[in-house]
Amino acid sequence: MRIRTLTIVGVGLIGGSIGLAAKRHGVAEHVIGVGRQESSLQRAKKRGAIDEPCTDLATAAHQADIAVFCTPVDLIATQVLAAARDCRPGTLFTDAGSTKAAIVQKVESRMPEGVAFVGSHPLAGSEKRGPEHAEANLFEGRLTIVTKTSRTDAEALARTTEFWQSLGSRVRVMDPVEHDKSLAFTSHMPHLTAAALASALPAELHDLTAAGFRDTTRIAAGDPAIWSAIFAQNREAVLAALDRLGGQLLRFRSALETGDWPTVHELLMRAKEARDALGN
Amino acid sequence: MRIRTLTIVGVGLIGGSIGLAAKRHGVAEHVIGVGRQESSLQRAKKRGAIDEPCTDLATAAHQADIAVFCTPVDLIATQVLAAARDCRPGTLFTDAGSTKAAIVQKVESRMPEGVAFVGSHPLAGSEKRGPEHAEANLFEGRLTIVTKTSRTDAEALARTTEFWQSLGSRVRVMDPVEHDKSLAFTSHMPHLTAAALASALPAELHDLTAAGFRDTTRIAAGDPAIWSAIFAQNREAVLAALDRLGGQLLRFRSALETGDWPTVHELLMRAKEARDALGN
Repeated sequence: MRIRTLTIVGVGLIGGSIGLAAKRHGVAEHVIGVGRQESSLQRAKKRGAIDEPCTDLATAAHQADIAVFCTPVDLIATQVLAAARDCRPGTLFTDAGSTKAAIVQKVESRMPEGVAFVGSHPLAGSEKRGPEHAEANLFEGRLTIVTKTSRTDAEALARTTEFWQSLGSRVRVMDPVEHDKSLAFTSHMPHLTAAALASALPAELHDLTAAGFRDTTRIAAGDPAIWSAIFAQNREAVLAALDRLGGQLLRFRSALETGDWPTVHELLMRAKEARDALGN
Repeated sequence: MRIRTLTIVGVGLIGGSIGLAAKRHGVAEHVIGVGRQESSLQRAKKRGAIDEPCTDLATAAHQADIAVFCTPVDLIATQVLAAARDCRPGTLFTDAGSTKAAIVQKVESRMPEGVAFVGSHPLAGSEKRGPEHAEANLFEGRLTIVTKTSRTDAEALARTTEFWQSLGSRVRVMDPVEHDKSLAFTSHMPHLTAAALASALPAELHDLTAAGFRDTTRIAAGDPAIWSAIFAQNREAVLAALDRLGGQLLRFRSALETGDWPTVHELLMRAKEARDALGN
């Protein structure tokens, strides 16, 4: 894939990495970065993630062949619909939000004629923020979910798939509701758990933590605003996942309480098998 | 510190790392590794972690100036007391077990005259096993807890402290019961949580996990036998820690359920502050 202008709205770790990857793979001749803060855009430009900083969404949307929205999930739909009014026909819009159902539903039904939106979610990133932490190889070999509904345009879906593959990613097409139910387990449940663990640690014991506690709670350092918005958009699926976790914790708890060590051992063995299946 | 013979009972990741560190820092002229399996001892010798493999505890104990027990926590007390019958006067015994109260209580009251035991717990290691994963710098800058009770011999405590410091570790002296209560929060609670998370993931979603899920569950790959024994020795403190975690999870759950996003944000913010305080 080779396009003229790629517009990236929200140039943080993900947006910045898209810019770096697009340049490394020769996907875009020109990369425009859109943001509210000139200083953050200048850092992204200095990092080589964008060619041109722009604080006006309409201007950047008009120039885009493809526009990718990497802003918090509660802003994406509104921003896409606003930008769609100012773009040229044939422009492809996609995003990198961690939830998909609400965004896709709101956007797909309201896009103007000749302009397409396809939801995306690259399963990559970290608890860090900002273009300083962007990496050109962030998507290399990682999976990106691209969403398909009865409304999704087939050609736009194919172009979106090609776009992410051009950045080094593998792609899987999924229904947005199925995406959200799945990510509740693989991402949102562990995030809440890490946050609860970090909060459950008495402050005076900080010095007694080692690699285990740090690994287990690392993602709790993520941005609270970004994560509140994710939970708000995926409330029911996250509650269902939390209940499944609660059931597992309860099994451990009651085996511990009754001193049923064969069951504790059995539960730990099944957990190890599940974890070993994931690799490093 | 410079001794003639260091005996390491149980030459896995921790025992092997003690051997490598003792050699790097010139702490021991001769390192004997004790184990049941000749093959495992040969791997430790090949790795350079021990000089002499030995399958007879009595023989190895008799030669030791210092003997360190790196076996599962349910075996340590019995092994120390057995070895103490065969050692020379002045020998110092210590261990690397993840629980301390039960071991120290059982051993300190039964040690023969002229032989000392001081409990230790280096806060280092990983979910991996075996001397292949041993590292000479495993203890570098890490904390080792050394236990002190009314029975602990002051000179033996000082020598144990010096021993771990010679391997590159920082040392903190603690009461063994206080150690176990603290480690319930910093190590045992996160282990159970990681295990519950790994088990709560539907198998068909394995491909949709990314770095967050992997970090959060990494320690669930630990050895179930080793961890069952730890939980058995620290049952009450682990239950108390689990209840504190359960309380935090419940606060998240009820804020989610009622759609109280300011509270979700507030809880995530406090968790982030707690995690940020730990550093990387």
